[in-house]
Amino acid sequence: MENLETLGSLGENEALKRTVSRLNRGDFEVVGSGDDAAVVLTTDDRFVVTTDTMIEGHDFSLKWSSFYDLGYKAIATNVSDVAAMGAQPTSLVVAIAVPVTTKIQDLEAFADGLRDACEQLAPGASVVGGDLAASDKVFISVTAHGALQGREPVLRSGAKVGDVVAVAGTLGRAAAGLALLFSNNNDAISAYDDFVSVQLRPHPPIGSGIAASLAGATSMLDISDGLAKDAGRIAKASDVAIRLNARDLNGFEAMVEEPARAIGASALDWVLFGGEDHGLLATFPAEARIPREFKPIGVVLAADENQPSRVLLDDAPIAEKGWDSILGN
Amino acid sequence: MENLETLGSLGENEALKRTVSRLNRGDFEVVGSGDDAAVVLTTDDRFVVTTDTMIEGHDFSLKWSSFYDLGYKAIATNVSDVAAMGAQPTSLVVAIAVPVTTKIQDLEAFADGLRDACEQLAPGASVVGGDLAASDKVFISVTAHGALQGREPVLRSGAKVGDVVAVAGTLGRAAAGLALLFSNNNDAISAYDDFVSVQLRPHPPIGSGIAASLAGATSMLDISDGLAKDAGRIAKASDVAIRLNARDLNGFEAMVEEPARAIGASALDWVLFGGEDHGLLATFPAEARIPREFKPIGVVLAADENQPSRVLLDDAPIAEKGWDSILGN
Repeated sequence: MENLETLGSLGENEALKRTVSRLNRGDFEVVGSGDDAAVVLTTDDRFVVTTDTMIEGHDFSLKWSSFYDLGYKAIATNVSDVAAMGAQPTSLVVAIAVPVTTKIQDLEAFADGLRDACEQLAPGASVVGGDLAASDKVFISVTAHGALQGREPVLRSGAKVGDVVAVAGTLGRAAAGLALLFSNNNDAISAYDDFVSVQLRPHPPIGSGIAASLAGATSMLDISDGLAKDAGRIAKASDVAIRLNARDLNGFEAMVEEPARAIGASALDWVLFGGEDHGLLATFPAEARIPREFKPIGVVLAADENQPSRVLLDDAPIAEKGWDSILGN
Repeated sequence: MENLETLGSLGENEALKRTVSRLNRGDFEVVGSGDDAAVVLTTDDRFVVTTDTMIEGHDFSLKWSSFYDLGYKAIATNVSDVAAMGAQPTSLVVAIAVPVTTKIQDLEAFADGLRDACEQLAPGASVVGGDLAASDKVFISVTAHGALQGREPVLRSGAKVGDVVAVAGTLGRAAAGLALLFSNNNDAISAYDDFVSVQLRPHPPIGSGIAASLAGATSMLDISDGLAKDAGRIAKASDVAIRLNARDLNGFEAMVEEPARAIGASALDWVLFGGEDHGLLATFPAEARIPREFKPIGVVLAADENQPSRVLLDDAPIAEKGWDSILGN
């Protein structure tokens, strides 16, 4: 028999209890959910913190994302920002607001997605607290914390002329997934469902953030808004320019060539301007032993005021365009 | 000339820049806004973290609250949860989503409210990061962090039979303010505007949380949903009962007597069941030197299975009722 209980019929306290019971306890959790606040262990006297919001109709559609997907993605996108500082994700707090008509099963599936993403992407990290509220549209806000384990944070501002530019993770796959969903081409969607799944449940390379820090990365960020735009952010923060080698992007293009052909899109555009794969973009000194999961794709150049852009594809300036959460593309 | 710029006309990056520039740097901020994550100092190897959400139409109305008020209240309610653990607030991250038609002045006023609340309620603490997004209704989600400075956290679960129950801050004033607003009685609203202001911009006694911890408080929480309901939470977590002395509540009643009479409401109901003053409710061993800002209002008794409630007013069990953010009162 189907369970017809909803947030509205159960109330905040009971619905929270049912949801929280599906989460696992993490390695850094001293006091978990249920008090005024949680208490979390750090590994030194600092912690890393980042926050991100997902809003129905703006950042996702319930037509495409299940509540499980939403929980998974909410964790993935936030621990990715922690990783981009060279830190170990330790803990998260999650606020979700949903219509009172939302079924308790959906809230439970959301919690399952949170739990599984922690386990698969950032073992040892856990959801230590949260908030459940009523609203007309689904609204999810996550704050993630990380431990630096005595290392200095890897900022966006440390890239030096001559550094190697390298990327860990995929490029353009989430953009391919989104384009497939928008195409309404059901044959293509099911033929390339692994791209759709990167869009709905991204798998950022979390451990690679620490590896990059240990290898001496001079700057790093997670590519959430597209390679060109995010490379531009490092270039601007570091007051340098970044040259991407077209040849080094061929492998990434090849990975999204088939779905691009299937729906008449440009694979290179997805690689350069597509966001949400949440790969890590980092710069390393030329003499560094770059971790094997990072693929070199370019080099840091001196800033040139006469160029219209700080980002070049081979010798040609390219637009530092990408996703703006308000303005769109 | 009026500034007609909106979130939609400026885009996320420019609107964020204009808003963030109004914030102050705090004492615990190592890396602030602008990178993938912030870095915050702790005073030992743990930190306290709590999160809370405010949603237009559910938690506030733009008819009554200015954007400045919303910023102020968002900080106040969250640092209050940090204080209730006996911790020093250090840092917050703030996510806000607003319609694209929202004026940049409103976002700036929101930031001013964030800044002023930090300065006035939790000096040294600051907003170290955030997120700005577009949505149909205003959503605000805040996560606050605190430092335990080597002390153990004060949980809800430590109350012992014989402990003194005491409260710091006010009771019933925010409920009076809300009732005044709902009364649409403009004469009463302006006559008692300091009650309305407690509802819109609460002033929780943040420093008293550390004072209680130093004095040996055995349990503590911040009264967000009403004295009876929150006393019930301590009683349940500690497996005890709590007896409130009606006589000791007289002073709190007297403070809200006038507005209660003006709009025909019950002062005692506001004191017992009204939330959102965010006072601190704590229990202390009988021999403790209770900090002067805490007023004794009752005593911890053994739990009695034959009683219908864990909370008594003198000898009579009272409903552990109060605010449920989904079900309402």
